[in-house]
Amino acid sequence: MKVYIAEIIGTATLVLFGCGSAVFAGASIGIVGISLSFGLVIVGMAYALGPISGCHINPAVSVGAYIAGRLSGKKLLGYIAAQSLGAVTGAALVYAIATGDANFKIAVNGLGQNGFGAGYQAGYNIESAFLFEAIATFLFVVVVLGSTSGAASKKFAGLAIGFFLVLIHLVGIRITGVSVNPARSLGPALFVGGQAVSQLWLFIVAPLLGAAFAGLLYRAGVLED
Amino acid sequence: MKVYIAEIIGTATLVLFGCGSAVFAGASIGIVGISLSFGLVIVGMAYALGPISGCHINPAVSVGAYIAGRLSGKKLLGYIAAQSLGAVTGAALVYAIATGDANFKIAVNGLGQNGFGAGYQAGYNIESAFLFEAIATFLFVVVVLGSTSGAASKKFAGLAIGFFLVLIHLVGIRITGVSVNPARSLGPALFVGGQAVSQLWLFIVAPLLGAAFAGLLYRAGVLED
Amino acid sequence: MKVYIAEIIGTATLVLFGCGSAVFAGASIGIVGISLSFGLVIVGMAYALGPISGCHINPAVSVGAYIAGRLSGKKLLGYIAAQSLGAVTGAALVYAIATGDANFKIAVNGLGQNGFGAGYQAGYNIESAFLFEAIATFLFVVVVLGSTSGAASKKFAGLAIGFFLVLIHLVGIRITGVSVNPARSLGPALFVGGQAVSQLWLFIVAPLLGAAFAGLLYRAGVLED
Amino acid sequence: MKVYIAEIIGTATLVLFGCGSAVFAGASIGIVGISLSFGLVIVGMAYALGPISGCHINPAVSVGAYIAGRLSGKKLLGYIAAQSLGAVTGAALVYAIATGDANFKIAVNGLGQNGFGAGYQAGYNIESAFLFEAIATFLFVVVVLGSTSGAASKKFAGLAIGFFLVLIHLVGIRITGVSVNPARSLGPALFVGGQAVSQLWLFIVAPLLGAAFAGLLYRAGVLED
Repeated sequence: MKVYIAEIIGTATLVLFGCGSAVFAGASIGIVGISLSFGLVIVGMAYALGPISGCHINPAVSVGAYIAGRLSGKKLLGYIAAQSLGAVTGAALVYAIATGDANFKIAVNGLGQNGFGAGYQAGYNIESAFLFEAIATFLFVVVVLGSTSGAASKKFAGLAIGFFLVLIHLVGIRITGVSVNPARSLGPALFVGGQAVSQLWLFIVAPLLGAAFAGLLYRAGVLED
Repeated sequence: MKVYIAEIIGTATLVLFGCGSAVFAGASIGIVGISLSFGLVIVGMAYALGPISGCHINPAVSVGAYIAGRLSGKKLLGYIAAQSLGAVTGAALVYAIATGDANFKIAVNGLGQNGFGAGYQAGYNIESAFLFEAIATFLFVVVVLGSTSGAASKKFAGLAIGFFLVLIHLVGIRITGVSVNPARSLGPALFVGGQAVSQLWLFIVAPLLGAAFAGLLYRAGVLED
Repeated sequence: MKVYIAEIIGTATLVLFGCGSAVFAGASIGIVGISLSFGLVIVGMAYALGPISGCHINPAVSVGAYIAGRLSGKKLLGYIAAQSLGAVTGAALVYAIATGDANFKIAVNGLGQNGFGAGYQAGYNIESAFLFEAIATFLFVVVVLGSTSGAASKKFAGLAIGFFLVLIHLVGIRITGVSVNPARSLGPALFVGGQAVSQLWLFIVAPLLGAAFAGLLYRAGVLED
Repeated sequence: MKVYIAEIIGTATLVLFGCGSAVFAGASIGIVGISLSFGLVIVGMAYALGPISGCHINPAVSVGAYIAGRLSGKKLLGYIAAQSLGAVTGAALVYAIATGDANFKIAVNGLGQNGFGAGYQAGYNIESAFLFEAIATFLFVVVVLGSTSGAASKKFAGLAIGFFLVLIHLVGIRITGVSVNPARSLGPALFVGGQAVSQLWLFIVAPLLGAAFAGLLYRAGVLED
């Protein structure tokens, strides 16, 4: 039970503070500030919750870990359910706090949802969005599985993974808002609706594809000593 | 005695450099710079003072540690007294340095005090302010208690906690200026007066509530391996 | 074989995310964001790939390690080939994603290529460009060889090297766009052509010269305990 | 001899990259970028040179260590000489590279020198400048001596000290440009002359005073377990 409580809290924090940074402060802190926010959630939570659940807080990471043989199939379903529940809770909290700003309108400001195409960020097309999400998640899961595999420097994983997630956001917010995490995309989409929901499939399929490929590389031992 | 000297120095530094960054440099470094300032005080001080007092430098952290059973009731009072004294000292130093700028007016520039409602930052209402402070402090104390509980990666706690505090400021400066620390709110409020004093209760009650809840979770062993 | 796969993936990521941050997001994240991107690739990749190949992902680092006596001559050639292949792959991925933005024109936006002289960044002349690249690479390789030489704190090398690369970019993007890595310069140059190719020699010669000098200092034991 | 070579290289790098970031890129990276530059020099150099000389690269740190009983009087003089030589070398390199930009004029752009009073940064008066430099150096040396005193987490000192120096610059660049290091002030002053030289005494006296007080606290064991 503890592992699922940890995954709920962690994923809720990721959406509350990651998407929240864009909603509450985006105009002031810019993409650099939003990127730091998403990544630093991982740094904090990894050292607090890592010993309990591994602090996946991302279904793509759990799927990668499952394929690599580091998570049981039974737990995988529990992890994904907990992460989804956490993400929706986090989005609800962003919405609850945001309504305390008289100027906030969800249809205008959004909740930090992902997207692509005309009208979303720089207007990158679907092919670029898919390619970016698949490759970025592949590399993210390589960093997750790689940095946690050696006992020697495993304790540094929270820093390595968190700062790598800062980087992915710096590079990709203009492209898709950066998902690399289906739960993180699900939470805001449920509240925002419309295009965020109709485009949600891409932020499930592309990250899981990239994560699965990373999991296979580690299952095959290609990137392990 | 050493532990209280450490808490005085640490909390004074938090207010001097955290609030000071907003007063001396806020217009140049923006919310990203101010957020880095508050969090990096923790990174530095945790490794310098952590071995002596645990470097709480925050009554909410001390209350959470007390409820979790990691600090005695007797020490709790001493910690809070030292932190309050340190915070007032820090605010006095910000004021002393700020007066060396001919354009500084405390009524206009403030001393980095917290607040909410019309005229403060983005004008979030009291409900959002309370919700944000309670949840953010809850999560902050989860990171503090979680990252310092396992012997294995305890040494990383200073980095995890410090960077998590950077994040909380990125997200919340537009909402309340971010307290999550009653002492940090007390210091500037005493010098600025007015609304900073009349709203001070929220920055005592909400953080302590969030911290107490985190302490209970750890007392119950819900988030420990 | 594993070591070369690791070097290909690492160098491709450096170019994809480093140069990609400039191409996809440069106008939004500025030099601070681009600098963080280049350096944080190292932080993530060092902990994921370091145990396999040492995560050089830079021919200058491999040449420095070879001269210092830490890499065999046979492996040196394989490393450089893998890094060059990875860098070209990374640049191809930047190009593929960038074309999904209807406003992208490679002749105008470039691919994050290095350069100097009139029309490139602040217009520094060739002497300054050469001096900066040689000294910066010398110091970078000192940090690489120095931080990985003591067993005690070797695990911190990924953070030390990554953050030092952030710094070099903050200082030098206005001068040369910062290479300190011949492979990183090669990748984008092949796609952009023109001046990026005709100036490529400087980003091979100057970094290798600086790296060689650092390698000699460590071979002679001048900077080792 | 090795220790002095290490101190020369380290202090030269601090001035080359710290002051250089202001000269080459200040208009683009702002105070946040310059602050990161000064601090991240420490992160990189501490892990490269720390095992050899302790990587003081700052006469105030060496004086604090001497008073705390951690450095011999004979070595103190050698350290200060090496640091001064390194700082002048670093400033010479900044100047050499800067002249490759046709628009650079040392009388207008400076070399990242420290100062105070009308016409320098925000125009803080001498009392504020002295107070800031003395207190900031005191706290900096507390972090240096504190984080390196316990064997347990000594390896984290490079990160703690480096990030704390980032913070001090975020807070203080608008006040004095931030010295907390007489050598760092000396280097650029020699090239810029004028007010930078006539105000140099403050950036020697105030930092040494703060450092001495920190050294006394550690000599007396007030801040040690």
